[in-house]
Amino acid sequence: MVRESEIRVGETVVEAPKPNNAGLVYIGRIRTPWTSRLETPRQGRHDGPVCRLEIFEPWVPALQGLDLYKTLEVIYWLHLSRRDLVLQSPKNDGQARGTFSLRSPVRPNPLGTSLVKLVGIEGSTVFVRGLDCLDETPLLDLKPDRCEFTPLAPPQPGDFQTE
Amino acid sequence: MVRESEIRVGETVVEAPKPNNAGLVYIGRIRTPWTSRLETPRQGRHDGPVCRLEIFEPWVPALQGLDLYKTLEVIYWLHLSRRDLVLQSPKNDGQARGTFSLRSPVRPNPLGTSLVKLVGIEGSTVFVRGLDCLDETPLLDLKPDRCEFTPLAPPQPGDFQTE
Repeated sequence: MVRESEIRVGETVVEAPKPNNAGLVYIGRIRTPWTSRLETPRQGRHDGPVCRLEIFEPWVPALQGLDLYKTLEVIYWLHLSRRDLVLQSPKNDGQARGTFSLRSPVRPNPLGTSLVKLVGIEGSTVFVRGLDCLDETPLLDLKPDRCEFTPLAPPQPGDFQTE
Repeated sequence: MVRESEIRVGETVVEAPKPNNAGLVYIGRIRTPWTSRLETPRQGRHDGPVCRLEIFEPWVPALQGLDLYKTLEVIYWLHLSRRDLVLQSPKNDGQARGTFSLRSPVRPNPLGTSLVKLVGIEGSTVFVRGLDCLDETPLLDLKPDRCEFTPLAPPQPGDFQTE
């Protein structure tokens, strides 16, 4: 699957455990130009269209300081995806690969991550380029890209541990 | 907060909505050398200790093909973290910044992401370097790093869309 939730030759479905180990809160909504799974990019591009992250209350104050960074990591919930495939056939050619070896939206926890370029912030809206998800995708988290971020908190012993 | 869930001068707590918009299933367990939040590294390093991702059934077959990649993205659940701070003071100096401008484990959805180096796979266990989380951290997802991964599925119109 991927396009419209069909199961293809070579794909393996499992009986998935109930997803009740922990719960998510949608912190916002992503607005993109793509309203069909058949049009959405496979991967975002940094010269792609500007998309909007609309942040819900009470989380808007958590945006303070985000404008210090050029590249952000965005985590979102691929709400239309099946969660029960362990082998998938992306080319629909009978060849299947493990779900964890793919970046397909179909996964036990359909978590999408993108690195995006910050265009600007206006009130509760963050404008970015580089997304690859459907319009109305629920937003879960937003943080500076690890390469740009230096922890503000003092180091801890594990920071110096090598093997 | 960060170290032991205390609230510091300058930090802002909100009444967080119930996290029941979507549910997570733990697909495995992460084993690391760190058993205290006061020792865990702020950021993982690729010459750090080898850590283990123990994958639970029924997801083990989903590892097929993962060994094609050198760098993996790991997503985990920071299960001990508060979820209700919008402003945080990482240095505990009275200066606070928005949660989304930090990579602190304290966030509305405490999702941690790391890029790790694959050391090897044996049965249901994946050995990696570069993690920065506590021993026994619940594992949520595992995928090839975006830089190494080229989608197998055919392109879609959005892939070519620029602005």
